[in-house]
Amino acid sequence: MVNIAVMGYGTVGSGVVEVINTNGARINQRIGDELQIKYVLDLRDFPGDPIQEKIVHDFDTIVNDPEVQIVVEVMGGIEPAYTFVKKCLLAGKSVATSNKALVAKHGAELLSIARERDINFLFEASVGGGIPIIRPLNSSMTADEIEEITGILNGTTNYMMTKMFYEGSDYDDVLREAQEKGYAERNPEADVEGYDACRKIAILSSLISGQQVDFEDIYTEGITKISKEDMMYAKAMGMTIKLLATSKRQGDLLQAMVAPYLLRKEHPLYSVNDVFNAIFVHGNVLGDAMFYGSGAGKLPTASAVVADVVDEAKHLHRNIMTMWKSDKLELLPFEDTSKRFFVRISGEPEALKAHVESKFGPVEIIRADGLEGEFGFLTGVLTERVYEENAKEFPGILHRIRVEG
Amino acid sequence: MVNIAVMGYGTVGSGVVEVINTNGARINQRIGDELQIKYVLDLRDFPGDPIQEKIVHDFDTIVNDPEVQIVVEVMGGIEPAYTFVKKCLLAGKSVATSNKALVAKHGAELLSIARERDINFLFEASVGGGIPIIRPLNSSMTADEIEEITGILNGTTNYMMTKMFYEGSDYDDVLREAQEKGYAERNPEADVEGYDACRKIAILSSLISGQQVDFEDIYTEGITKISKEDMMYAKAMGMTIKLLATSKRQGDLLQAMVAPYLLRKEHPLYSVNDVFNAIFVHGNVLGDAMFYGSGAGKLPTASAVVADVVDEAKHLHRNIMTMWKSDKLELLPFEDTSKRFFVRISGEPEALKAHVESKFGPVEIIRADGLEGEFGFLTGVLTERVYEENAKEFPGILHRIRVEG
Repeated sequence: MVNIAVMGYGTVGSGVVEVINTNGARINQRIGDELQIKYVLDLRDFPGDPIQEKIVHDFDTIVNDPEVQIVVEVMGGIEPAYTFVKKCLLAGKSVATSNKALVAKHGAELLSIARERDINFLFEASVGGGIPIIRPLNSSMTADEIEEITGILNGTTNYMMTKMFYEGSDYDDVLREAQEKGYAERNPEADVEGYDACRKIAILSSLISGQQVDFEDIYTEGITKISKEDMMYAKAMGMTIKLLATSKRQGDLLQAMVAPYLLRKEHPLYSVNDVFNAIFVHGNVLGDAMFYGSGAGKLPTASAVVADVVDEAKHLHRNIMTMWKSDKLELLPFEDTSKRFFVRISGEPEALKAHVESKFGPVEIIRADGLEGEFGFLTGVLTERVYEENAKEFPGILHRIRVEG
Repeated sequence: MVNIAVMGYGTVGSGVVEVINTNGARINQRIGDELQIKYVLDLRDFPGDPIQEKIVHDFDTIVNDPEVQIVVEVMGGIEPAYTFVKKCLLAGKSVATSNKALVAKHGAELLSIARERDINFLFEASVGGGIPIIRPLNSSMTADEIEEITGILNGTTNYMMTKMFYEGSDYDDVLREAQEKGYAERNPEADVEGYDACRKIAILSSLISGQQVDFEDIYTEGITKISKEDMMYAKAMGMTIKLLATSKRQGDLLQAMVAPYLLRKEHPLYSVNDVFNAIFVHGNVLGDAMFYGSGAGKLPTASAVVADVVDEAKHLHRNIMTMWKSDKLELLPFEDTSKRFFVRISGEPEALKAHVESKFGPVEIIRADGLEGEFGFLTGVLTERVYEENAKEFPGILHRIRVEG
């Protein structure tokens, strides 16, 4: 018998209980032992719910019970999650969590406590929901130097970008629709400003570098300025626009950022639509790979959490997770990162092209049917600094979007 | 120090040596020990190649050396690979292989020998080349019942199907081109007849069911009859044609087959092009997921083999692979499997539709621009038996292709 406790009976927590109830026989067979939920921690009661008899309101009941070997943390947020998880690990209990904020901020410390005690701190569900990505990075892509990891890591914004692309809708309209469907929160900031994707790429960056990457250091730009007109240009170029979270090796440094990017048809992430997430990985010997699936949702997320519980139950006294060290990795300064830029500008190419090229170098002029009095141009590869310095000279610039690849 | 031997210095074998030479420092860090290639077994000599000093011609040198803890088998074929691998496992050496024929035929037995001896028999590279799929099935998707696994598992045929779709080329021309580029063998049978994909789906089917699925039991149809005209109809329907290897649960049984399928734009496998492979998985709680990457090639395949070596080096005396039992799983009889069919037939819909519908039920008529004197129709879901029995009544049928989903 392996006893577990679930902290938080919200969406993911109730999903965890449902997954264990639904697939219990198969799960037990894989563990080679019987998994039992002993406690569910929540402030609320759930009268009539079969879980009610397992509800406890006091965290100490869990941490002080030597029979509890694995704890699931699906409360979200930094506190009290951090305090509870740390106490559980210090008490010798393995922890599985879906909490990206917790992992991004305290992952290095919690991993090192788990390693010292020969137990595990696993967090597959914290990035990409149900998509296996943390474990493949930890135990499958171990013959490679991972040179790039770029993901569509937020389902809400991907749903919005997909709608805007296929239906030509306005940003405000798709946001309202996403809110009505329950894909976006009433306060959508964490999604649309890219904060959610930022924490996730911080976790992936820490994993591939083996050092702490602070999410505060990652340049993050959301999708709030993406317009119907931008999508018209994207279509004219045979591209689409996606919110990408990306981390690339450049020499010994890593460049990481979150921003809307123009993406070519040939890129594997191009056809990742609606609320789906996907993570593109480039290894120096593996080449290109991509992992695709449901990046959120009750059952997919719970599936990943329970898979961590299964792994922890199979390795009760053996640490299996690669650590990342707590010393901080310096990122390549944002101003020094380079890429191509797509720029929309008021005016006519005939009048402006020479001036534009004198500042940005050779550009490709882009016209979108139906848009008068403005045009677009694609630059060659420039640093952010060079772009910004020269952009100042053109008050007619309406928008600029980066180009991936 | 962990000593390994590589059996076979062909494409994959030399790739394994190259990967270890290239990424050795990182690999050693992940293992926490130094990996060293002690022997390379090959019938040939390689004068001038730095590997020459490690070349041995006698297998006994490897199996009798107690210092060798891990053996890489990349010779291919059943014999002598089977005899060598079995002897290595019986001698307490873990084995990593890319050999799909060996795994499909003898996987259950070799896994059970490894388990008895607390060592490992791993074969990530046998399906999907560099794409992590065996390990994710074994240790990531463990909270799910896997209800479907459908893959584009052969790069050669996917390259050919992609060319035929995008360029409107004939089968014979794309085959010649694939041969010139080195993607197809001079004798292309194993690829174009689906035999390669069949062994791979047999392995995946065994893994998801936990029982032996014999590849001889899997209905296998190649791409040799797919024509330019078929692709014209596919386009007219907004679909494409791919060689799919698929395994689906139907009640307690599994239905497995390899055949060309029509695939809708919305399917994640639709946009998997050129020599890339991808594996779509549906879990009862996870939902849809897909794994994409290089399904073959020297370095991607070697990357997967070396990742297995890393896992084996980290688990020298601990078995980590889920077994499948040697008792054979009965598949749902092919005749009882059901799907929609697309049928091309000589004549005109006006004259034939009533007769067609009297036999196949309601159908959707499909016309392709530029094809005269014939038309196509899409049936509802039928069993293979019902389709075959009724198709006999229509001597004008030119071709039938199954429809996925």
